Amino acid sequence: MKIRVGIVGVSGYAGLELMKLIQQHPSVELVAAMDVAELGEKSLDDLHPRLRGMSNLSIFPPEKERVEGLQLDTAFLCTPDRASYELAPRFRSLGIRVVDFSGSFRLKNAGSYSSWYGFQHANQELLEEAIYGLPEVNSKAIAAAGLIANPGCYPTSVILALLPLISAGMIETGSDIFCDSKSGVTGAGRGAKQELMFSEVSENFRPYSPVTHRHAPEICQELEWDPGNFTFVPHLLPTNRGIISTMYVKFHAQVSSAELEAEYGNRYSGRPFVRILGSGRLPELRAVNHTNFCDIGWRLTHAGRRAVVFSAIDNLGKGAAGQALQNFNIMHGLEETAGLL
Amino acid sequence: MKIRVGIVGVSGYAGLELMKLIQQHPSVELVAAMDVAELGEKSLDDLHPRLRGMSNLSIFPPEKERVEGLQLDTAFLCTPDRASYELAPRFRSLGIRVVDFSGSFRLKNAGSYSSWYGFQHANQELLEEAIYGLPEVNSKAIAAAGLIANPGCYPTSVILALLPLISAGMIETGSDIFCDSKSGVTGAGRGAKQELMFSEVSENFRPYSPVTHRHAPEICQELEWDPGNFTFVPHLLPTNRGIISTMYVKFHAQVSSAELEAEYGNRYSGRPFVRILGSGRLPELRAVNHTNFCDIGWRLTHAGRRAVVFSAIDNLGKGAAGQALQNFNIMHGLEETAGLL
Amino acid sequence: MKIRVGIVGVSGYAGLELMKLIQQHPSVELVAAMDVAELGEKSLDDLHPRLRGMSNLSIFPPEKERVEGLQLDTAFLCTPDRASYELAPRFRSLGIRVVDFSGSFRLKNAGSYSSWYGFQHANQELLEEAIYGLPEVNSKAIAAAGLIANPGCYPTSVILALLPLISAGMIETGSDIFCDSKSGVTGAGRGAKQELMFSEVSENFRPYSPVTHRHAPEICQELEWDPGNFTFVPHLLPTNRGIISTMYVKFHAQVSSAELEAEYGNRYSGRPFVRILGSGRLPELRAVNHTNFCDIGWRLTHAGRRAVVFSAIDNLGKGAAGQALQNFNIMHGLEETAGLL
Amino acid sequence: MKIRVGIVGVSGYAGLELMKLIQQHPSVELVAAMDVAELGEKSLDDLHPRLRGMSNLSIFPPEKERVEGLQLDTAFLCTPDRASYELAPRFRSLGIRVVDFSGSFRLKNAGSYSSWYGFQHANQELLEEAIYGLPEVNSKAIAAAGLIANPGCYPTSVILALLPLISAGMIETGSDIFCDSKSGVTGAGRGAKQELMFSEVSENFRPYSPVTHRHAPEICQELEWDPGNFTFVPHLLPTNRGIISTMYVKFHAQVSSAELEAEYGNRYSGRPFVRILGSGRLPELRAVNHTNFCDIGWRLTHAGRRAVVFSAIDNLGKGAAGQALQNFNIMHGLEETAGLL
Repeated sequence: MKIRVGIVGVSGYAGLELMKLIQQHPSVELVAAMDVAELGEKSLDDLHPRLRGMSNLSIFPPEKERVEGLQLDTAFLCTPDRASYELAPRFRSLGIRVVDFSGSFRLKNAGSYSSWYGFQHANQELLEEAIYGLPEVNSKAIAAAGLIANPGCYPTSVILALLPLISAGMIETGSDIFCDSKSGVTGAGRGAKQELMFSEVSENFRPYSPVTHRHAPEICQELEWDPGNFTFVPHLLPTNRGIISTMYVKFHAQVSSAELEAEYGNRYSGRPFVRILGSGRLPELRAVNHTNFCDIGWRLTHAGRRAVVFSAIDNLGKGAAGQALQNFNIMHGLEETAGLL
Repeated sequence: MKIRVGIVGVSGYAGLELMKLIQQHPSVELVAAMDVAELGEKSLDDLHPRLRGMSNLSIFPPEKERVEGLQLDTAFLCTPDRASYELAPRFRSLGIRVVDFSGSFRLKNAGSYSSWYGFQHANQELLEEAIYGLPEVNSKAIAAAGLIANPGCYPTSVILALLPLISAGMIETGSDIFCDSKSGVTGAGRGAKQELMFSEVSENFRPYSPVTHRHAPEICQELEWDPGNFTFVPHLLPTNRGIISTMYVKFHAQVSSAELEAEYGNRYSGRPFVRILGSGRLPELRAVNHTNFCDIGWRLTHAGRRAVVFSAIDNLGKGAAGQALQNFNIMHGLEETAGLL
Repeated sequence: MKIRVGIVGVSGYAGLELMKLIQQHPSVELVAAMDVAELGEKSLDDLHPRLRGMSNLSIFPPEKERVEGLQLDTAFLCTPDRASYELAPRFRSLGIRVVDFSGSFRLKNAGSYSSWYGFQHANQELLEEAIYGLPEVNSKAIAAAGLIANPGCYPTSVILALLPLISAGMIETGSDIFCDSKSGVTGAGRGAKQELMFSEVSENFRPYSPVTHRHAPEICQELEWDPGNFTFVPHLLPTNRGIISTMYVKFHAQVSSAELEAEYGNRYSGRPFVRILGSGRLPELRAVNHTNFCDIGWRLTHAGRRAVVFSAIDNLGKGAAGQALQNFNIMHGLEETAGLL
Repeated sequence: MKIRVGIVGVSGYAGLELMKLIQQHPSVELVAAMDVAELGEKSLDDLHPRLRGMSNLSIFPPEKERVEGLQLDTAFLCTPDRASYELAPRFRSLGIRVVDFSGSFRLKNAGSYSSWYGFQHANQELLEEAIYGLPEVNSKAIAAAGLIANPGCYPTSVILALLPLISAGMIETGSDIFCDSKSGVTGAGRGAKQELMFSEVSENFRPYSPVTHRHAPEICQELEWDPGNFTFVPHLLPTNRGIISTMYVKFHAQVSSAELEAEYGNRYSGRPFVRILGSGRLPELRAVNHTNFCDIGWRLTHAGRRAVVFSAIDNLGKGAAGQALQNFNIMHGLEETAGLL
């Protein structure tokens, strides 16, 4: 019998991506398509012409009484921060496991929310219950989790690339890390904004929110790295999907490419979705888009005292829906790659 | 001394294009940048970063008392239909010549407006004064005009290609004309709409408003062709600019490519912005984008009894701002190509 | 036990697409990755970074002695016309079933090849054995076929849209059919050509090979329509994938949208990959790209005496690799949708 | 009377851009269109459909005897490195002033060419004569120059942003500078390469030649910065044009944004093509593409001890043809902005 799941936020890009993945998953059944937006009588077909004829589910708002009867095992919240903040306790109170795509349960310090997310966070209990859902780092905790804070797209690309080097003590304590990231536009959601129109994005490229992007504290928290020594500069690419992060780091001592390869290999041994390219091939979007992979490569400089590290993910895949399903697989003792290869 | 002009609608793409063209024009000075949208304190730099540092004009609404003192010779209305409908008489009453980019003065029959444009048109006087501003057809009337109805982008591409054949009596009376047009997204304006977001348009292509697009009556009126035998199907291209129209026509009698070439050559002799490619090279967007040219080519079929005619223009150039400036040049006895080559 | 298949032409886009699809197919195993190009020591990873770490197959040329020992059940030839012309008999002589992506076995008349494909076709035997692999039309013959001529991408989009209307006798005999098609660039292959460079295609759009494209005779053959009354005009879209065909047809008698819907519904009842949109929604690329669907919609004109019919497919999906796998499924008595939903 | 110029390399993108600019220049006449590629009978119209009907020049190879009679004042070499290396002395020997777009005369040290450019440089004389053509830095020397080494596109974007800070002694001596640059594809030329095809570049993004790109030594030479402390990482954008460079620098002492603004303002006072955006607005491609501007902006970090500096140019404008014409204007005592605004 298939595991019964629901999605809140089917109208957006992450919700659509998750529906496509679930369709290919052998042991999951989508039984509830929910949304917090006022969609009127819109059907899934209306929202996503790609899904025409593939589902008869009608869309409804995630009201408690309607959710109760559904016997959901797990709910995926593909919702904005405040919506998730309100919905997560509702689902948890019904005993439903939650994988939340928003930032609302990622920061451990409730006090950080007012400055980074613009609202007061008063749910300390769920913050403590929440597991940061990066399977390559937290798989044990994920397996037992009731609430997964699915990582941000940029943080996924950065943490997977830097954590092995930091936790091995290779990067010089107190040195600067510069992280220059570039993302396709679906990372900004599907709401109509002039600055995201085709005629503004196509043939354009630009930095945005440099230094002040809300993914910076999430990255530093997980890397246990002093935010004072971390500079994060995101840019908007004229592509639909994909993130490349280019990171500049300084080592304690001279390092060889073989040592880096050993360190990464050690950390990600047996992890099916991290591909170590080493100092030869370079990560690129087309290699990871429409997949759940994170590709990592590098170049040494300064005779091995510094390095440029590159990582690539699909922001809707490993950066959102793919990773959510990977977490789900681990939570349910399924093959980690089920539905994802 | 330069001719003093104003633009209403500087916030949109046609307004921007016109400002760029005027900047290169040796005998025109932009003295008023107006808009009907609520732009707050926004400057031209805010709206169009390309213009940074190039103009000190501040933006104001086109209120009568503010316009009066400006000693404008000509006003360009790069405004939506209803705005133009209200603004044109205001400027005319001040003795200012008007080049209007909207559809509000293009249809001769006031009664057509309710069905095609969704509002009642009650300004018969201006409809009669208005000259359809297609310089290759109406240059004499344009020279003396007080109000120019600048042609629609699709109509420009279609009329220039078909009028010579129809007025020469080559196309079989009562036969069907099928017009399959494709346009870049700036034709749809700069207002934020989900369907025009990069993530919806990129890697996409689709027909829209087939058969019912409001440019069909305009085309038939100018071609003097029975709308019952004209099928117009526009499509949205994932490009910023440009229109290709592919038209399928039937001749009275067998026709040779040389005869077509002679007919077009005759019609457009001395017209600097129509390029006849004949039956060899084919029109394409990159040849006309960022120019005021209309390229026309064809292929004969059915042993010369039918033809496929292709035309290409830049929807913001010959389809809007370029054509407006060409009209302006003719209105003022300037070199027709001034500022446009 | 999985069915053993090989692919010739793994270096191109259709070959890559097929490998991705086979990876998700529950009962197929790719055991041989072949190519006719000189690839040196290149691995699948080198050719397609997306496949990194997903296959250990090395690439070899399809020489008879190397193929013999492989116990292949089926070979997919994702090869150019002449290569397929030579390879198909080689594989057939080894008793291997063949699905050929090229045009070399699609035209029934061997004599047509010199004018349309530029080479003399002398393999009448295989031309007769070959089944035109359009499952919605030929599924019985496909089930028993030794050699499938997988349809061209444009023909798939046109035939699925027009065949129901023609075979029902609705389209007026001897009337003109105008077919205005638009395709993404992968349809032109992966060989380096200046005209297909990003800097030539992006922000561009153009017709090519109007009237003379080699897919025209294939379409007319399958529709049993007089080529003298069929006009085919392809255009190149600045997208990676997808085809929209816009077709203009004339009916014998007045037709209602309900009648069209009934006719299509009747023809495609039980066919999982044709979606009839009717006179409401319109086909678009994003609804079909990365799927095996063909979407069909229409608008009536001339009070139901004529229609514009639209169809959309993914040229690499239903127009190539997806359709090939659909044929394969039918050939092997598998679920028609296996690996394709 | 107009100044007579010739272009070698009219078949490429920089050559095309230069022809478009010259067309708008009031005092320059293009009298010779040359190329080193074998173009057969191709006309300018064939190479660049945009130029149809705009020039009657036929294309010829830059042989000495053909050049001699032309009475050229200046030749623009839009040619690859080795071609320029051979052509520059030929034109100089005829007393023709040369603006060279290649890298062949940019590096002061002839010995550097074998490692960075792959050929032995033996023309010490011309290396010494050559003036690095960055008008905002070298305008006096440019005015008198016989041979201009027109700067590389990346170097232009980096040097204009960093030189004021370095020459003012603000950047900490011996500290690391990380330069993360992103360029559109026309920077890679017009030669057909698989990796530059639309289907490989669209929806893709990737680093290339990190650390080892040949523009690094040019940048360090002009900045007089130790190459050991300079890390240059270029990336390929899916756009036709434009470069954004994102640079990470460390200051000697705490710096305020006002101080930066004063320093830049001082350096570029009176320079018409550098726009200082300060710490508010951010550079972006659409603001500079199709212009000769370089936009510079920044964000301070580490309480003013470090900064992220952004610059944007059009690689074909300020990064190639625009800058060449700016140099030309200075060389001839013309208005620096002639033909460029």
